[in-house]
Amino acid sequence: MHVRYSAAIVAARDEYPHALVIATRWKDNDVYGHVNNVEYYSYFDTVINEYLIREGGLDIHSGGVIGVCAESHCEYKGGIAFPESIDACLRVGKLGRSSVRYEIALFRQAEDEPVAVGWFVHVFVDRDNRRPVEIPEPLRGALERLVVSGE
Amino acid sequence: MHVRYSAAIVAARDEYPHALVIATRWKDNDVYGHVNNVEYYSYFDTVINEYLIREGGLDIHSGGVIGVCAESHCEYKGGIAFPESIDACLRVGKLGRSSVRYEIALFRQAEDEPVAVGWFVHVFVDRDNRRPVEIPEPLRGALERLVVSGE
Amino acid sequence: MHVRYSAAIVAARDEYPHALVIATRWKDNDVYGHVNNVEYYSYFDTVINEYLIREGGLDIHSGGVIGVCAESHCEYKGGIAFPESIDACLRVGKLGRSSVRYEIALFRQAEDEPVAVGWFVHVFVDRDNRRPVEIPEPLRGALERLVVSGE
Amino acid sequence: MHVRYSAAIVAARDEYPHALVIATRWKDNDVYGHVNNVEYYSYFDTVINEYLIREGGLDIHSGGVIGVCAESHCEYKGGIAFPESIDACLRVGKLGRSSVRYEIALFRQAEDEPVAVGWFVHVFVDRDNRRPVEIPEPLRGALERLVVSGE
Repeated sequence: MHVRYSAAIVAARDEYPHALVIATRWKDNDVYGHVNNVEYYSYFDTVINEYLIREGGLDIHSGGVIGVCAESHCEYKGGIAFPESIDACLRVGKLGRSSVRYEIALFRQAEDEPVAVGWFVHVFVDRDNRRPVEIPEPLRGALERLVVSGE
Repeated sequence: MHVRYSAAIVAARDEYPHALVIATRWKDNDVYGHVNNVEYYSYFDTVINEYLIREGGLDIHSGGVIGVCAESHCEYKGGIAFPESIDACLRVGKLGRSSVRYEIALFRQAEDEPVAVGWFVHVFVDRDNRRPVEIPEPLRGALERLVVSGE
Repeated sequence: MHVRYSAAIVAARDEYPHALVIATRWKDNDVYGHVNNVEYYSYFDTVINEYLIREGGLDIHSGGVIGVCAESHCEYKGGIAFPESIDACLRVGKLGRSSVRYEIALFRQAEDEPVAVGWFVHVFVDRDNRRPVEIPEPLRGALERLVVSGE
Repeated sequence: MHVRYSAAIVAARDEYPHALVIATRWKDNDVYGHVNNVEYYSYFDTVINEYLIREGGLDIHSGGVIGVCAESHCEYKGGIAFPESIDACLRVGKLGRSSVRYEIALFRQAEDEPVAVGWFVHVFVDRDNRRPVEIPEPLRGALERLVVSGE
């Protein structure tokens, strides 16, 4: 039923330089017994920000520059359910002056076909006036390490 | 910063046949003080399923046919924050044999420019084997009433 | 099965000076088909903070005094399910120098028996050092209006 | 400010026979920069059900007996914030014929003082008629292994 999802977009695990194991929670499952589509975006948000904080020095509490979401997208290829854990794999598809487009794939552990793929655009802005700013170091350096050549 | 967001996609409120007022909740706000991008998809899910249940007879507890999300997308044009309420406006962009593509716009109350627009694809499947099925009545009738001609 | 829940604690709707209609969302329902127990606390948080913001002038974004949760409790008497709305009723059981104990009851619309009752303790603290402070006006005045005599 | 929280209730880590590491998520943090009080209950739900599924054979999708929450409680001793992980420690305080009272403590990793302690009552019921039933094996056996003598 997800035939629209072209092979060209799907990447193998090793095309994503960063990965985070995310454990599902009881209430991620919805009435149909699987993780609700909304939660996939929470996994995106989590793998991205966890990386920015740990590797890029993002200070979410008092830093002057923050990343706000401008656009996001997800294609669902299969279901996952609590209490599974998934591997959230992350790369950068496009790195601009003040924005970045991440590409994310979620894999069941020990599987090679993703259960979902998506992308997410962050625009970095001044915390106070919310205007776009140039991505500062060391954030930029951390993002550069996720850029996949040839994308 | 959201210049990619073309005027052609944006519709006026009156181009959406259905609307639901959704009140934000305390925990919708994230650390940056506005509703987290993830919650927008929860608003999508809510306006869609509320309509299917009330108007299309969808039985989420024991009906034989259920709608599962195949793809979703959102573009963020502005922030909203608890305790605001938003108007979630809904129309059908494409109605197929077993799938439907909804288009959603979120408006601040009394504003004419949406704070977010997105779309969401439901594939209707058999609850047990999760294979696509033809959309049954009265669901189809309810969806047809949301189709906007000329889209 | 909830016989422990004594009649003395249960109050009628008119014993709660404030009420807010809260609409459930699709993903509030868990795999068993009803609103997950966790979400009830989100309803508590929402009715409380909505009142503090609208009636007490609480500035959650930049005010110097904020309310943090020290303790919460809920007893579940019945199930609710999306797409129902519930009435979240609020009163103050005890108002101290720097803390307040709210009592909340959730009612199905048009029903007189609550589906849940609970309480929630806010300690008001300095936003920066997180030390308890005396509840300032106009917050205190707003809270006093919710105190039920004879409790 | 949490002086009400008596030492007698607080247990050391080794008094909890089961523990699960739970990673926080981006949207767990609320506008005040720390994990929202509501999410603590999601951690409770998660450590409990993960144990019941893995150790007690609970079948949340089609089993005839399910556990529904009758009462829950939490006392907050300190804040946690994304991207921290916490240790959710679990024991059984009281095991009845059809209900169980769990006691949970959340610890920061490498700390000995819990950031929160709480309890949660499950009543096991027939999935269809929602009436209490005797806790069946192997669920009962799994719960017995969490009972702490002398409680």
